[in-house]
Amino acid sequence: MRSISQLGKFGLIAHLTENIRKGNKSTISDIGDDSAIIDSGGQQVLVSTDLILEGIHFSLVYTPLKHLGYKAVLRAVSDIWAMNGKPEQILVSVGMGSRFRLENIEELYEGIKLACDKYKVDLAGGDMTSSFTGLTIGVTAVGSAPKDSIVKRSGAAVNDLICVSGNFGAAYLGLQILEREKKMFEKEKVAEPDFSGYEYLIGRQLKPEFPVSVLEELERAGIRPSSMIDVTEGLASDLISICKHSSAGCTIYYSRIPVDYETAKAAEEFNIDPVTAALNGGEDYELLFTIPVAMHDRVSGIKDVSVIGHISGEAGSYILAGDDGSEIRLKAQGWNTAE
Amino acid sequence: MRSISQLGKFGLIAHLTENIRKGNKSTISDIGDDSAIIDSGGQQVLVSTDLILEGIHFSLVYTPLKHLGYKAVLRAVSDIWAMNGKPEQILVSVGMGSRFRLENIEELYEGIKLACDKYKVDLAGGDMTSSFTGLTIGVTAVGSAPKDSIVKRSGAAVNDLICVSGNFGAAYLGLQILEREKKMFEKEKVAEPDFSGYEYLIGRQLKPEFPVSVLEELERAGIRPSSMIDVTEGLASDLISICKHSSAGCTIYYSRIPVDYETAKAAEEFNIDPVTAALNGGEDYELLFTIPVAMHDRVSGIKDVSVIGHISGEAGSYILAGDDGSEIRLKAQGWNTAE
Repeated sequence: MRSISQLGKFGLIAHLTENIRKGNKSTISDIGDDSAIIDSGGQQVLVSTDLILEGIHFSLVYTPLKHLGYKAVLRAVSDIWAMNGKPEQILVSVGMGSRFRLENIEELYEGIKLACDKYKVDLAGGDMTSSFTGLTIGVTAVGSAPKDSIVKRSGAAVNDLICVSGNFGAAYLGLQILEREKKMFEKEKVAEPDFSGYEYLIGRQLKPEFPVSVLEELERAGIRPSSMIDVTEGLASDLISICKHSSAGCTIYYSRIPVDYETAKAAEEFNIDPVTAALNGGEDYELLFTIPVAMHDRVSGIKDVSVIGHISGEAGSYILAGDDGSEIRLKAQGWNTAE
Repeated sequence: MRSISQLGKFGLIAHLTENIRKGNKSTISDIGDDSAIIDSGGQQVLVSTDLILEGIHFSLVYTPLKHLGYKAVLRAVSDIWAMNGKPEQILVSVGMGSRFRLENIEELYEGIKLACDKYKVDLAGGDMTSSFTGLTIGVTAVGSAPKDSIVKRSGAAVNDLICVSGNFGAAYLGLQILEREKKMFEKEKVAEPDFSGYEYLIGRQLKPEFPVSVLEELERAGIRPSSMIDVTEGLASDLISICKHSSAGCTIYYSRIPVDYETAKAAEEFNIDPVTAALNGGEDYELLFTIPVAMHDRVSGIKDVSVIGHISGEAGSYILAGDDGSEIRLKAQGWNTAE
């Protein structure tokens, strides 16, 4: 088996990408050149970029590299969908330490290829470098959209309904379980971690998918959201971001936040309120969007979409309303927050 | 003075970018959204991405953050120029450790702003995250070009002249001097490093510029290079990359490799052959391009361009010819190589 140093930088990129086919007409370039070339027939081009750092965004102790590659792609292209665009290309930059072997980086690229195939995105370029400081992945996603169909964070209007796809908090609790098993492993040298009963949560953490079907259903129903974002920081933080960009406030209802049964069960184990996990967990890769209230009937027919509240005219007022009439001020948690 | 944690992620991005104006008509988006929106009126869009890692690409011991920000932008946009495109937007992602204070990251963005102003590029988006593993910067550059004017690495033809802008090896020797002074400082606690006589070399390392004027002169002279690359890996490595993409070979002449007087002097101090430093040093941010031999008269009138050799039909044959008729096989050095 050849080593990374035998292949060299360009040989390595060529080797890793030789089986990755391009399928989008707008992808003009080959991978080896300075830039990716993207043809745009008068559409607007969307570009988004993300950094994924070892120790911050993932731990190699429990993240298979294939899953990491898959998630890195998903993370980047979800920003294009969040603008109601169609992701078409990605550029991947990898910085890796000397402990990395060829089969490790191949595994990473297997996951990248899987995600590219699944979501019909072309790998169109990138960079590769050594790293003294852990595995670092930079992913840039490029997409396009007709000018009039782009949805920004800033379009939410008073009385608009706040809608979400899927359910929340699962990836966060998946991470808690992985961290717990990691500690058990380090402390007690338990040979095999026990993940039975937590498959859904761990799947949401390690191999998230994006609710592309919801975007398609919205289009079919003739609903163009007034604002939209992908939920990665956390439902509360991302909702507050929409409100800030729209100079608005919001009220959402505790009992309407969708939480999966397995999430609720695990939250109980960890002594966390499931809705707190749902609001602040992050990495959900679900859609959060607002629609005019007149669209209520249309949206209620779409599977996997829940209406959780509405936009208010009071900028800066972010309310979580309980069933008992109580009102709590919604906060964006942690460092990666909108506040 | 506010702290980073008080500002939060989005507050920090807003704060750092509030004085950075956008000047390109194609820049549609505001910085806060999921993706940058770029209008493309039927041009081809160029996208390039780079990772810049602490310990690999820079040492904070001798790299002022302002210079680092400037160079990070230059590094990314130079890939667009290398395709004969016009850089128009950048997206900057930063991962920083907890030792970073607000004034540090502000300093970094001052340099980013300076480079954006100088090269008329708009900061159109990005990402910001914590890092456990040193300062990490990802820069994505976006540009455009009419389809017919894009120059790739793959177009070099037999007998084409190999041309370069400026001179080579200066940034590499600047780095050697910085490293030497760093060691002196660590060992003997010398208070003030002595850089007198090395200003040019250190400037080429810490605050490189790009020879945009050469691109303009080429256009004015009606010369469209058959292939082109920006020299960042090293003249030898980047020339070999052009040859590989063009399925060709090359011969370049030892005595024609442009080396500055200060570079030659410093190379002597370090007991390095100046041409070896020029061929393998890297980070020159000069242009390397090929033109049909019929263009020789036109190119010889352009200031700062040297013809250093020619393309041959023997794929895989990369020759450095000495004045005495000797021939050495040219090699791409180091990990970051084309071989």
